[in-house]
Amino acid sequence: MNSVLVNASVSYEVRIGKGLLDSAGTQIREVFHGEKIALITDDNVNALYGDKLHRALESGGFKVCRFVFPHGEASKCGTVLNDIYGFLADNHFTRTDGIAALGGGVTGDMSGYAAATYLRGMDYIQIPTSLLAQVDSSVGGKTAIDIPQGKNLVGAFKQPKMVICDTDTLSTLPRDFLIDGMGEVIKYGMIRSPELFEILENNDISTISSGIEDIIFRCVSVKRDVVEADEFDKGERMILNFGHTLGHSIEQYYGYTGISHGRAVAKGMELITGLAEEHGMCGAGLTERLRRCLEKYELITEIKPRTPELGAACMNDKKNMGGSISVIICGDVGNAQTVKMTMDGFMAFIGGKDGSNGH
Amino acid sequence: MNSVLVNASVSYEVRIGKGLLDSAGTQIREVFHGEKIALITDDNVNALYGDKLHRALESGGFKVCRFVFPHGEASKCGTVLNDIYGFLADNHFTRTDGIAALGGGVTGDMSGYAAATYLRGMDYIQIPTSLLAQVDSSVGGKTAIDIPQGKNLVGAFKQPKMVICDTDTLSTLPRDFLIDGMGEVIKYGMIRSPELFEILENNDISTISSGIEDIIFRCVSVKRDVVEADEFDKGERMILNFGHTLGHSIEQYYGYTGISHGRAVAKGMELITGLAEEHGMCGAGLTERLRRCLEKYELITEIKPRTPELGAACMNDKKNMGGSISVIICGDVGNAQTVKMTMDGFMAFIGGKDGSNGH
Repeated sequence: MNSVLVNASVSYEVRIGKGLLDSAGTQIREVFHGEKIALITDDNVNALYGDKLHRALESGGFKVCRFVFPHGEASKCGTVLNDIYGFLADNHFTRTDGIAALGGGVTGDMSGYAAATYLRGMDYIQIPTSLLAQVDSSVGGKTAIDIPQGKNLVGAFKQPKMVICDTDTLSTLPRDFLIDGMGEVIKYGMIRSPELFEILENNDISTISSGIEDIIFRCVSVKRDVVEADEFDKGERMILNFGHTLGHSIEQYYGYTGISHGRAVAKGMELITGLAEEHGMCGAGLTERLRRCLEKYELITEIKPRTPELGAACMNDKKNMGGSISVIICGDVGNAQTVKMTMDGFMAFIGGKDGSNGH
Repeated sequence: MNSVLVNASVSYEVRIGKGLLDSAGTQIREVFHGEKIALITDDNVNALYGDKLHRALESGGFKVCRFVFPHGEASKCGTVLNDIYGFLADNHFTRTDGIAALGGGVTGDMSGYAAATYLRGMDYIQIPTSLLAQVDSSVGGKTAIDIPQGKNLVGAFKQPKMVICDTDTLSTLPRDFLIDGMGEVIKYGMIRSPELFEILENNDISTISSGIEDIIFRCVSVKRDVVEADEFDKGERMILNFGHTLGHSIEQYYGYTGISHGRAVAKGMELITGLAEEHGMCGAGLTERLRRCLEKYELITEIKPRTPELGAACMNDKKNMGGSISVIICGDVGNAQTVKMTMDGFMAFIGGKDGSNGH
């Protein structure tokens, strides 16, 4: 088992290893002393691991109440959230009880947000079962739900008490979801870890699974460093958004259904690095190196919208603060920087020198 | 003008004085540097002070967007909250913009909660216009909404950037609301300030208004001390719940419409002090002294439910943690203590020595 200690406003451990689900209850008991745990999960994950975790939590001495909701991003909304609040209240949960979030990013984000706000805050444990959630959303305390105007527009910073990544759960992950998670994995290499990026370059989608525990450990370590430096997203944490600004616009263009998050982020990284190279903001050849790596994980995607269109959509993005936009650019593998641009500057940057850059 | 500095996780000033609304914009500009402010208020308060604050905020150099919702506790719900989120998103509010909450406790609690959670947190300013909100809910950072299962069950701790109490707004407060606020004022005297309690004893509902600025200053000073000692409600802050445990049960019994919060709290203080005296936990005669003070502010109320009934209802209260209940008892005027009781112990306490105590 690998372990990463996150020293944020509260300290907690991210445990990564095979078969951790079986002993989840006794592991949680080390850091959480409440009486009851609400096991929150979606119907897909529940069918695979719900009973197993339920038993494990009971073995840890917890009373367990289970809440299952329909899988998919559409569930990450106020309606399901209200159902969770009602479920907690009906089962007489108090501030000293807790939540265990079993599943992917939707489950983790929404359950964490419920934990942040029910009775003004209770403890929760992340038990991510997708690669994306294990390397990204389960660590760092960003919780949220979507509203009709956009994704993650309502949320809170609330660190979990523990994160348990059982890598065995990745064996039931559909191949598309593994590919999807690799988008974020490649991001970590690009922004902070040349070593990770080289490991990725020396593997491909068919070989990476055998070393996945080490890969997750490396990703979480990068995320830990960034979160510790900027827990509340005031500056440095923005580098985690590498590829995300254009990526979100791509997701938005396709109504969040036509393209997966990881693929959209991959395309976002490719586009922004291409623009950076064009403007001399990174070394020559970086885009090609990134593309070759993305290709190994089947993350090269053709999209319909042209880059200036995507740029225009960014203007309404929540990360635009006070008329400016923070663009994350990698000057080299492992070296991400935040470049603040005015809206006009960003449109000029994205439109290319002649203002007509496509993709 | 009086000013109280609150040194919580963030520091902010509570300003108390006549006519402060007129200069609210420039005052806010001292501590908040965003571009836009969402003025959130209910229809009643909007008709009285909406335009005045709107102009004042514009004079401070802010762009102002106004959101008005129907007055009353029923609005403090997920539905109106979602409307606020939508309003903020539709008007392109970013994390560096802010909210000004103009009104009573419903407006302050819900607007503060919106500020705590929209984009994971933006600044907000409390501009309370009721006595209850000026002495209590606007200070200390507790924000919340109600859910069908109970009041304030969903919320966050989020301190405001500034609290502006314009005592002129109390002149338009219906007499019943002034009486209501006095319930909390008397509470502050009881839990922490013999001086305040004596001032209250030497006045009555018809004379108190002339010295209200000093009264509010004293209440806020007590609240400041308690919040600074225990911002996140882990211990000492519970003394602010004096009279509230039974008070909430009374409100619940009457469906939150048959009795006002202040009257319910007044009755709760009276009942719990009576029980404390009966059990020798406070000096003889304290209940009578409290009753005489409550009488001066027309806060003696007859209620239908018997005390053991109310006690039973407390069992489901959110403040019951892990099978025990924290009861706030004043040993003397100005001296509140938290007494932790088991559920059985509490039922025995509340049922009287022969288990049949009424009221």
